[in-house]
Amino acid sequence: MILYGGDYNPEQWPREVWAEDAKLMRDAGVNFVTLGIFAWAQVEPVPGDYRFAWLDEVMDLLHENGVAVCLATMTASPPPWLGHRNPESLPVDDGGVRLSYGSRCHVCPSSTAYREAARALVTELVRRYADHPALAAWHIGNEYGCQVPKCYCDLCAEAFRGWLRRRYDTLDGLNEAWTTTFWSQRYSAWEEILPPRRTTGIPNPAHTLDFTAFCSDALLECYRLEADVVRQATPGVPVTTNLCNVAPTTDYPAWAAEMDVVSGDCYPDQREPEPQLQSALFFDVWRGLGDGRPWWLLEQATSAVNWMGTNPAKKPGGMRLDSLQAVARGADAVLFFQWRASRGGAEKFHSAMVPHAGPDHPLHQAVRDLGADLRSLGAVEGSRVRAETALVLDWRSWWAVEQESHPSDRIRMMDRLRDHHDPLWRLGVTTDVVRSTSDLSGYRLVVVPNLYLLTAEAAANLAAYVERGGHLVVSFFSGIVDENDRVWLGGYPGPLRELLGLSITEFDPLHTGTTVPITWDGAESRATLWSERIELEGAEAVAAFGDGSPAVTRHAYGEGVAWYLGTRPDPAVMRELTRRIAAEAGVTLPGLPEGVEAVTRAGADGVHHLFLLNHTFEEHRVPVADGGSVLLDGERSGGALVLPPRAAAVLRRAGGDAGFPGPSTTVSS
Amino acid sequence: MILYGGDYNPEQWPREVWAEDAKLMRDAGVNFVTLGIFAWAQVEPVPGDYRFAWLDEVMDLLHENGVAVCLATMTASPPPWLGHRNPESLPVDDGGVRLSYGSRCHVCPSSTAYREAARALVTELVRRYADHPALAAWHIGNEYGCQVPKCYCDLCAEAFRGWLRRRYDTLDGLNEAWTTTFWSQRYSAWEEILPPRRTTGIPNPAHTLDFTAFCSDALLECYRLEADVVRQATPGVPVTTNLCNVAPTTDYPAWAAEMDVVSGDCYPDQREPEPQLQSALFFDVWRGLGDGRPWWLLEQATSAVNWMGTNPAKKPGGMRLDSLQAVARGADAVLFFQWRASRGGAEKFHSAMVPHAGPDHPLHQAVRDLGADLRSLGAVEGSRVRAETALVLDWRSWWAVEQESHPSDRIRMMDRLRDHHDPLWRLGVTTDVVRSTSDLSGYRLVVVPNLYLLTAEAAANLAAYVERGGHLVVSFFSGIVDENDRVWLGGYPGPLRELLGLSITEFDPLHTGTTVPITWDGAESRATLWSERIELEGAEAVAAFGDGSPAVTRHAYGEGVAWYLGTRPDPAVMRELTRRIAAEAGVTLPGLPEGVEAVTRAGADGVHHLFLLNHTFEEHRVPVADGGSVLLDGERSGGALVLPPRAAAVLRRAGGDAGFPGPSTTVSS
Amino acid sequence: MILYGGDYNPEQWPREVWAEDAKLMRDAGVNFVTLGIFAWAQVEPVPGDYRFAWLDEVMDLLHENGVAVCLATMTASPPPWLGHRNPESLPVDDGGVRLSYGSRCHVCPSSTAYREAARALVTELVRRYADHPALAAWHIGNEYGCQVPKCYCDLCAEAFRGWLRRRYDTLDGLNEAWTTTFWSQRYSAWEEILPPRRTTGIPNPAHTLDFTAFCSDALLECYRLEADVVRQATPGVPVTTNLCNVAPTTDYPAWAAEMDVVSGDCYPDQREPEPQLQSALFFDVWRGLGDGRPWWLLEQATSAVNWMGTNPAKKPGGMRLDSLQAVARGADAVLFFQWRASRGGAEKFHSAMVPHAGPDHPLHQAVRDLGADLRSLGAVEGSRVRAETALVLDWRSWWAVEQESHPSDRIRMMDRLRDHHDPLWRLGVTTDVVRSTSDLSGYRLVVVPNLYLLTAEAAANLAAYVERGGHLVVSFFSGIVDENDRVWLGGYPGPLRELLGLSITEFDPLHTGTTVPITWDGAESRATLWSERIELEGAEAVAAFGDGSPAVTRHAYGEGVAWYLGTRPDPAVMRELTRRIAAEAGVTLPGLPEGVEAVTRAGADGVHHLFLLNHTFEEHRVPVADGGSVLLDGERSGGALVLPPRAAAVLRRAGGDAGFPGPSTTVSS
Repeated sequence: MILYGGDYNPEQWPREVWAEDAKLMRDAGVNFVTLGIFAWAQVEPVPGDYRFAWLDEVMDLLHENGVAVCLATMTASPPPWLGHRNPESLPVDDGGVRLSYGSRCHVCPSSTAYREAARALVTELVRRYADHPALAAWHIGNEYGCQVPKCYCDLCAEAFRGWLRRRYDTLDGLNEAWTTTFWSQRYSAWEEILPPRRTTGIPNPAHTLDFTAFCSDALLECYRLEADVVRQATPGVPVTTNLCNVAPTTDYPAWAAEMDVVSGDCYPDQREPEPQLQSALFFDVWRGLGDGRPWWLLEQATSAVNWMGTNPAKKPGGMRLDSLQAVARGADAVLFFQWRASRGGAEKFHSAMVPHAGPDHPLHQAVRDLGADLRSLGAVEGSRVRAETALVLDWRSWWAVEQESHPSDRIRMMDRLRDHHDPLWRLGVTTDVVRSTSDLSGYRLVVVPNLYLLTAEAAANLAAYVERGGHLVVSFFSGIVDENDRVWLGGYPGPLRELLGLSITEFDPLHTGTTVPITWDGAESRATLWSERIELEGAEAVAAFGDGSPAVTRHAYGEGVAWYLGTRPDPAVMRELTRRIAAEAGVTLPGLPEGVEAVTRAGADGVHHLFLLNHTFEEHRVPVADGGSVLLDGERSGGALVLPPRAAAVLRRAGGDAGFPGPSTTVSS
Repeated sequence: MILYGGDYNPEQWPREVWAEDAKLMRDAGVNFVTLGIFAWAQVEPVPGDYRFAWLDEVMDLLHENGVAVCLATMTASPPPWLGHRNPESLPVDDGGVRLSYGSRCHVCPSSTAYREAARALVTELVRRYADHPALAAWHIGNEYGCQVPKCYCDLCAEAFRGWLRRRYDTLDGLNEAWTTTFWSQRYSAWEEILPPRRTTGIPNPAHTLDFTAFCSDALLECYRLEADVVRQATPGVPVTTNLCNVAPTTDYPAWAAEMDVVSGDCYPDQREPEPQLQSALFFDVWRGLGDGRPWWLLEQATSAVNWMGTNPAKKPGGMRLDSLQAVARGADAVLFFQWRASRGGAEKFHSAMVPHAGPDHPLHQAVRDLGADLRSLGAVEGSRVRAETALVLDWRSWWAVEQESHPSDRIRMMDRLRDHHDPLWRLGVTTDVVRSTSDLSGYRLVVVPNLYLLTAEAAANLAAYVERGGHLVVSFFSGIVDENDRVWLGGYPGPLRELLGLSITEFDPLHTGTTVPITWDGAESRATLWSERIELEGAEAVAAFGDGSPAVTRHAYGEGVAWYLGTRPDPAVMRELTRRIAAEAGVTLPGLPEGVEAVTRAGADGVHHLFLLNHTFEEHRVPVADGGSVLLDGERSGGALVLPPRAAAVLRRAGGDAGFPGPSTTVSS
Repeated sequence: MILYGGDYNPEQWPREVWAEDAKLMRDAGVNFVTLGIFAWAQVEPVPGDYRFAWLDEVMDLLHENGVAVCLATMTASPPPWLGHRNPESLPVDDGGVRLSYGSRCHVCPSSTAYREAARALVTELVRRYADHPALAAWHIGNEYGCQVPKCYCDLCAEAFRGWLRRRYDTLDGLNEAWTTTFWSQRYSAWEEILPPRRTTGIPNPAHTLDFTAFCSDALLECYRLEADVVRQATPGVPVTTNLCNVAPTTDYPAWAAEMDVVSGDCYPDQREPEPQLQSALFFDVWRGLGDGRPWWLLEQATSAVNWMGTNPAKKPGGMRLDSLQAVARGADAVLFFQWRASRGGAEKFHSAMVPHAGPDHPLHQAVRDLGADLRSLGAVEGSRVRAETALVLDWRSWWAVEQESHPSDRIRMMDRLRDHHDPLWRLGVTTDVVRSTSDLSGYRLVVVPNLYLLTAEAAANLAAYVERGGHLVVSFFSGIVDENDRVWLGGYPGPLRELLGLSITEFDPLHTGTTVPITWDGAESRATLWSERIELEGAEAVAAFGDGSPAVTRHAYGEGVAWYLGTRPDPAVMRELTRRIAAEAGVTLPGLPEGVEAVTRAGADGVHHLFLLNHTFEEHRVPVADGGSVLLDGERSGGALVLPPRAAAVLRRAGGDAGFPGPSTTVSS
């Protein structure tokens, strides 16, 4: 069964609406809601005075209507009384401004007052609902770090020093790791160390990097504190929290390790022409965080959001395609923020499952239809996505590469991931997202975009992968520094030089609006963002800059091949280059019509589901193998599946691949 | 008599200059100056030590030279000693920074120290000058809220709580009005409520909306405190203050209600190709604030200002045309900031009536010529501007629509007013600006741009107007929320659905640089800013979006017609659409040459003055009726008035309309 | 001997690297290093506990290898313990935020704690190294004011009041100078005066101007404090500090007066197509600060820097050309930041003499080659640059013209200097940069770009120069205010009206993206940034605006000629106009190929060196006189010197001019 539902916030509505909600949920096939994320002030209106009666009623009502509850611990937004009584529980920015309550997430993670109030609340929740039949999962906090990833207060300063003592043991160790000999920054006592508060110029990059890691850990302690309470009382009930998109706010892999099921909130930018490319990447990342296990889509919008400046509506059919895309890429739960659109407050213009107009609105009708679709896909639950390629993403490197005072401040990790993930998506190649130290042996192709910070261990992992026959693509400004942001000496890219068969003698980044010519395959095109001087040390030049120096290289290494990109080719070149590299690596290239997405989920029972999603507004024919059954929209016609505009089809075949004919017959481009 | 003059700041100059000033004023026809706006530090150099001797001298000198005085209460910019002795009298920003004195308007309106110092000063002024023969009016403060519309200090927090108690009576009432169930924001005690200080994410929009209203009221209390003192002493002397352009800084209608004559400062952006369109709107707003009564133009520039980044000079003849435009649109006073250009200080490059070069400068010659022009228009005083159309503008809706977290952050009220006011101006249609609850019965056409916040009472007023035969135009994102920014449930635009005969099922705003096609009258054009899905419920589609769905609609309702615009057509389409709507409504369309402005003022005595202003650099012929007399530049020639480039003419006719031949014969476009 | 080397920071490296450094230096011809700029935390790891042993070792090692030491006083970046123990030693921004240590230059110049700690350290340094044979010079602090030019704390407030008392003696004097009658800003007690902290609107411009001057003086006191200590102990050792580019951060001329040799750090923006034009201006300014004496280039990059957002590499050969350009324009020392690229810290991506890759890297090879080049130019030391033209730059005017609330905020002094300096460079005309009160009698042409603030004394100096036959070019918005930013009354440009033979009746600045037509020499072109209405009072119009009014004028005055530019012509017009003005003034116009730079240094011994630098990537032939010898790259061929792409040649001739044939035969354009 695919879980289906959304955030349910009954406290925003009078009791008479709750009964209508329950009926509408039942009718729409909703079987799972996240309850009470922002209900702290309703269940504890004054400190210590808990009021659960209304929540009892809601829990019972949901249970009676067949809706399971992912119960929130409600701690994401403390009531005003906490900040009023304990101002030190409020976060402080880098300039010393203590942020006010009045929005949400106004929390210093090092505050004892906050932690104790949260622990007390969760203890009461557990006492009350541990045995309630509606309880199906726990939702800890909410989008940790999304609003305030960092607090610079004195409490955090103290906690940061403790964290550093544990990490470095001695002050000498810290001084060495942070290169404090530069600019006379040597610390002579632990007490001197502060958060990287607003300073006079470029801060120490190892200091800021460690502070980012500390901040994530401090929030994670808050999560763990609550998780411990609920796990002790309800050991069999899964615990999760919702990651917000894919972002460097917190150390996602560390968080994922503490979740029984990885969950995420997906808000691709609808101002993009093809937002499905962004969400595909998010989904692949979340799946990778759980090592391929199914995950939960805990939030998405039925249409527009409210916080992007301009918030366009989703295109017709968008809600359904987005939801099915999530399932295709490994989701076993499809939820929305939120069930019923708020009448007032900060997010009243965020679309919802029941719009302001009420249940007769076409959007709610689409919600009901989606419920029926998901019901028909129940057998997909638990199956795994098949991928032959992987993209490498390390959070600490992400933090490091986006710090200041680099050759270029234009390297933004999400863009760089997209530069590689987009062409793979367009080629119909499903991609996992893994870490640099992951087991790569199962992949035919591994892509490493801008892995600036690289440990020796990770470099060895990449080399071993290629040595044993793997195909690797590494893009520029990778392998530059160690885990403390210290340059690998002796020639860039230190620990990757031998593997790539080259060294880089000079970075020459491009500023906005400038390009460089590159020549590949006899044709000249314009590359952007970065160029550099590459000296070949075993690799061959595949493409060249205008001065004839290497721009893209290929290096046979062991049984495999290591490619290197010293610039950012234009998207058309990047796509064709990716196609050839993937083909050489033996990656299946299905040859799909432009804008059609195909992903296969395979069950432990041998049942395969091939999802075919037509994101375009034209009809497309996709050649598919005979046999199996077709779910949802598709119709067979002469060896192909006919996909109407914006349609989704699922080919189901028991006991084997439900896929296409091989790439040899279908690669058309 | 039209009042003529400017801000007079003799404290900036040695005594010998005063005599020259008096002579120059007399020669230039200056009969009215605003005196001493920034003279506090000169009359009270140390606390309690008043030095009025120099001011006595100036008052006497002005009186001897026939110049009446609008005496300032001098409280807009306290001397440094106030902020030095009472730091709590200085305003605090949302991040807790107490702003320093050193500029102007450095005042917390809730500060007792400021209020008492101001009251003491005004009491002394009244004691000294209540009976001075030069005293003709009181000028309270200066451009209230212009620099610092909001103070977030603890004194204001306390006052804000008092304001809220009066507004909501109970905390439950406030929690309900502010929808504090969202994001766990429920207040459990009044003490918890703060100004919307810098917070972690989107603030509560009802909180910020009420705080904006409170801040305006707090400043208005300061105004009232001073007005009470002067009114008690000099009941017959009119009291005013100067609104700064048209802005959401304070609640202009509430302020206008406290003024004996509405006054404004007009600084249209000279970087615009046709700044006269901006000032026309300002003038119409100010006139509307006084329900059509004549108003005073208390400040404008003779040429450039100094605070716009780039400050171009006015185009040749601009000062005269701008001044006559003000009179045409209802002004009975034409003043400038300032009489003599400052030698030093923050605004020394603000143009003045006597420039740095001295009285021989051509700009001062133009000042003298304008004095003569205004003298010839003395009979205009007291007459009323005639308008058949009205534009609706509500300040609370303005505040609300520009708050964050909306479908689009690109809806700026001034731009949206201009989108409707500009085409009316170009069609030669004079427009009043009224409120949503005003009596609309006298208008043939009423235009409602983006009235996001709409009360049930106001909606009923609009419906009644149409029902009785009125023609109404409403543009998108109107009628969305109630007075506490809570959505009208049941389908947008809640209280206007029946009147407009439609509902909107989805907003689809356009981000910068994007457009949508609309088809109207057989032609396709590009619209910007906004699109939406409209479902007709009685209305007919007049123009359509690219997908054929309605973009502009027309609904016969009662005896009248209600139009609706679901997007922002391009200016050419907007102008032609406005022309047709106005024509159907029976609005007089004079058919003027492009760039010629025509406005009529009608006296209680039946005397009409038709102002014809040629803003272009070409000669134009305007067909006019025979009879009456021609003032200023125009010359009759064959049924028309010949207007030289940049010329202004006034047709005066006693006992009847001084206007054009009817629209049937003159509409040429 | 030309000094050659860089910043040497051995504390960043283990002892074993020091020996390699010494060897590499010797091999590269390095004979001079700046030692220990950021070593405070290494020599005084805890307060009062000095550890010099490691530094003794380095000093000895350098001396043994023939490297002289410019020893830093190490006070630019105090160790964390100072800020931790004495928070009042940290600077405060205009909003009251005390900036944290953790970067560099985190110093309040008024802090006694900082001054005493610095004095103690310098005293110890002097005690230890005054007699060390390696000691060749003292380097005080580092780039004073570069990060934090202004501190707004209470200590600075107190010091600022003292500074003002000394400047104005009485409060009345200050009130008069600051025009505090405007906006009621009159001070009634010294205690009321504060730094111009964040305020409510436009601050008092005389207040901010004086505060900028005070801040420079406060930093200069810190410099002087240290200089006094070292001068007393080592009277024969020259003292300097490094100015950072050419910037308004501090009052460069006042600082230069305190240096035994003027020094500068040159970081032209490599994103510019021709960065050599920027560095040429820097060099000319520094040379002028020392009245033409040779100066030291204390810092530059071998290639990219790290703090510009995007940091491109220098173009091939750039390091060498940049270094030789410095020598050509008067440098007797060529140093880099830094010797060895840092492994970690904020500036690890700043290029260095020994890159991360080590000494085998091509950049280090170029460093060795440059050492050899400089060795061959040893005879240049001490000679003076020959210039027939001068550009006037006053720091106080620079500060004043870039303050806010002016006709245009687009007048940026560096751009405006370049508007005049660039065409002179392109014409091969070497230019000094002098002050408005300098002796101008030696110049054929003096150019005065935008000298907004002009004292009567300076105006008289300019007039006297022209009167005696000089040729002067003044550009717009000059001569507007006196030294306290008070307008010269009676018509712009007050004290220059008679000299220029005109007055300006109106400024009409142009906003971004707009232009005005000007007609000159029968052709129309587009000018930008500024226009104005000029009334001729003796001058003749040379170019005209679109309305026929004067845009550029020429006025015969005394024996000389005074030109005036009322706008910013396009670069092509500006170049040709400059050429004609220079030709009329009798300035030598060598007629160089585009992109070839030529500068002559003349020794007291009559030896001349003509530097010819080919900045282009093409070969060029430069006609030169016979005789003398050719150093570096050039080769003679038929009366010309052949310059390969990116090559540099030096023509040396004893006892006379080493220059070109006269301009009459070589001017080709």
